[in-house]
Amino acid sequence: MLLVLNSGSSTIKFEIFATPEIGSVASGIVERIGEAKGRLELRCGGAKMTEKSAAANHREALELVFEALREAGVLGGGIECLGVGHRIVHGGESFSEPVVVSKAVIDKIKKAAPLAPLHNPAAVEGIKAAGQVLPDVPQVAVFDTAFHQTMPPRAYRYALPAWCYRKHAIRRYGMHGTSHAYVARRAARQLRKPLEELKLITLHLGNGASVAAIDGGECVDTSMGLTPLEGLVMGTRSGDLDPAIPMFLIRETGRTAEDIDRLLNKESGLKGLCGENDVRGIVQKAEAGNEAAELALDIFCYRIRKYIGAYLAALGGADAVVFTAGIGENSAVVRSRTVRGLEQLGIVFDEDRNLEAGRREFSFHADESNVRLLVVATSEERAIAEATWELVGD
Amino acid sequence: MLLVLNSGSSTIKFEIFATPEIGSVASGIVERIGEAKGRLELRCGGAKMTEKSAAANHREALELVFEALREAGVLGGGIECLGVGHRIVHGGESFSEPVVVSKAVIDKIKKAAPLAPLHNPAAVEGIKAAGQVLPDVPQVAVFDTAFHQTMPPRAYRYALPAWCYRKHAIRRYGMHGTSHAYVARRAARQLRKPLEELKLITLHLGNGASVAAIDGGECVDTSMGLTPLEGLVMGTRSGDLDPAIPMFLIRETGRTAEDIDRLLNKESGLKGLCGENDVRGIVQKAEAGNEAAELALDIFCYRIRKYIGAYLAALGGADAVVFTAGIGENSAVVRSRTVRGLEQLGIVFDEDRNLEAGRREFSFHADESNVRLLVVATSEERAIAEATWELVGD
Repeated sequence: MLLVLNSGSSTIKFEIFATPEIGSVASGIVERIGEAKGRLELRCGGAKMTEKSAAANHREALELVFEALREAGVLGGGIECLGVGHRIVHGGESFSEPVVVSKAVIDKIKKAAPLAPLHNPAAVEGIKAAGQVLPDVPQVAVFDTAFHQTMPPRAYRYALPAWCYRKHAIRRYGMHGTSHAYVARRAARQLRKPLEELKLITLHLGNGASVAAIDGGECVDTSMGLTPLEGLVMGTRSGDLDPAIPMFLIRETGRTAEDIDRLLNKESGLKGLCGENDVRGIVQKAEAGNEAAELALDIFCYRIRKYIGAYLAALGGADAVVFTAGIGENSAVVRSRTVRGLEQLGIVFDEDRNLEAGRREFSFHADESNVRLLVVATSEERAIAEATWELVGD
Repeated sequence: MLLVLNSGSSTIKFEIFATPEIGSVASGIVERIGEAKGRLELRCGGAKMTEKSAAANHREALELVFEALREAGVLGGGIECLGVGHRIVHGGESFSEPVVVSKAVIDKIKKAAPLAPLHNPAAVEGIKAAGQVLPDVPQVAVFDTAFHQTMPPRAYRYALPAWCYRKHAIRRYGMHGTSHAYVARRAARQLRKPLEELKLITLHLGNGASVAAIDGGECVDTSMGLTPLEGLVMGTRSGDLDPAIPMFLIRETGRTAEDIDRLLNKESGLKGLCGENDVRGIVQKAEAGNEAAELALDIFCYRIRKYIGAYLAALGGADAVVFTAGIGENSAVVRSRTVRGLEQLGIVFDEDRNLEAGRREFSFHADESNVRLLVVATSEERAIAEATWELVGD
């Protein structure tokens, strides 16, 4: 059995996978770690259990998880944890693939903390907790940034003075790498071609959203940058902006740099444009004639469309455009508005196929389309479990 | 005779055009206005005259210009100034075409000053000076932003809270509009088709650089935004960045917002990457093996290439991609690296035709290319003279 952990500063999300088939058997979350009143949620075999249980720190939280797993019969009776896979947001330039955790690895994760000040320290807490609770079980670190480390300098360097890169490591890193890599592999299987022979554009469209250009299985460009703020319009993040706007807002409104950071990350995007960040709700409102919702949806789809064009140019054409994550998998409206009318670029959309949803993997291009249009369900947890099994399985 | 003025805070650039053929007969610049030691340069009929002559303000500077023009025989003897055309950087949302100057126009130019704090006040000085020196001559304001006012909201709105737009007018305005409009008209003539039937991508590549997507003569998107900082890599401007980078730099280096503004506008771009902002020099260095120059050139061309793809998607295909301004007209290397290998997008490049330079207008696509590749020489001054003549000519 493999345990996948996603540790936040006051939460641990977990999922349990059987091996070697990597099927998910249980998942859940511990919330409000460090507070007097905590909460544990466990989903297992279709049932959902919630209990109030305080955890002073990540170690106590993980002990709660194991207790609940034993009670639910997921662990114990000969079923042991064979490996722990951790989702780590930022690997800086140190990690281009999953690695077995060691002291040196932990130090490098700490070193990248300025690049992900909220996430990396929490991940280190999660690793330490797992080391205390499961001292003999190997741990694997899987980085959101690792898949994008193959980008060439023309894609990852910004046009800033060289000291910004050398001294402050300012460059494009990209995020959602585990998801982009996973759906690229799934897409290759769906297309019945080796990944090495394919050019793909993968669209991870969730509350956070990013695009990747993938050539022969290697990422050559992606829309998120130094941080997850750059690129597509997201639930509460602005995505691409004139980089003069932060300074303009500081000057015109007297706010601090921290205020602007919060404004752009938490109060912008779809929510800033129309007060809502759930695309299903926005589509309903837009269809009912709400102008702000229609504008938000229009901008959201238009910006995805421009990235598809940009990455078609970056790749010199593509075999497929792949939609994934909550919105990509479930919003036929977004898919339609994004790729309709691109015949001159070799993309021919089929609305009937697009509306035939309900499957985890399907295609919705017309037969004559040069570029295939695919929907693939992503699972970052499953991808982390697979990577963990690859490194620590027999 | 028509006078075209481009007024900076301490300079006035001028050019004189004969009408109605709009041929240029003289041009020049007054520098260091307001300083003890000034300088006037006049080019006329192949000759160049320079003299030291101080001007306390823009009115005195303009008087110096007229004196020099009379001495050179360009003015006087029955040849009178029939109109003055002013280049104005920012028209906010008030101006979508050139207008005859009135008090209300001047007020609106002043009102847009927060959007162009260095340029608009200087332009107002230039207008006032022309009104004093030529009280009976009609004046026309031609705005860098006007051509882009046809953009739809999905292109001009950022994904920010709505108050940013309503209260602070934060949106994409775009610049170089006079040039984009001019080369679009010239391209239509070269293609022997009405502009109304064409989809064009125009690349204005000078020390400042921008792209426009033009559908039926109307701008539908452009790369510069609230300010000229957004979009392509430029001589000293960064172009597109993760919008979190300004806050990251403020936090990590302790610099102020003003410092970062200057860093991104004056010390970044090609100069920041390789110490030089002249593309000819960069190409030479890159060919001699200088790695920083090669990287700068690679990023510069790659970013143009991505915008071509993005705007092909925005337009749903294009009839032509048009290169203009210093680099666009003269750098065969940049043109080649930008559009080579885009056959899957309908762009087939012909290197022999690309290298056949030396003409003001030519094409360099292969016969089988769906998208035509054109070079058109721009002249913002000539475009301003034409617009002025249209409004004040008989």
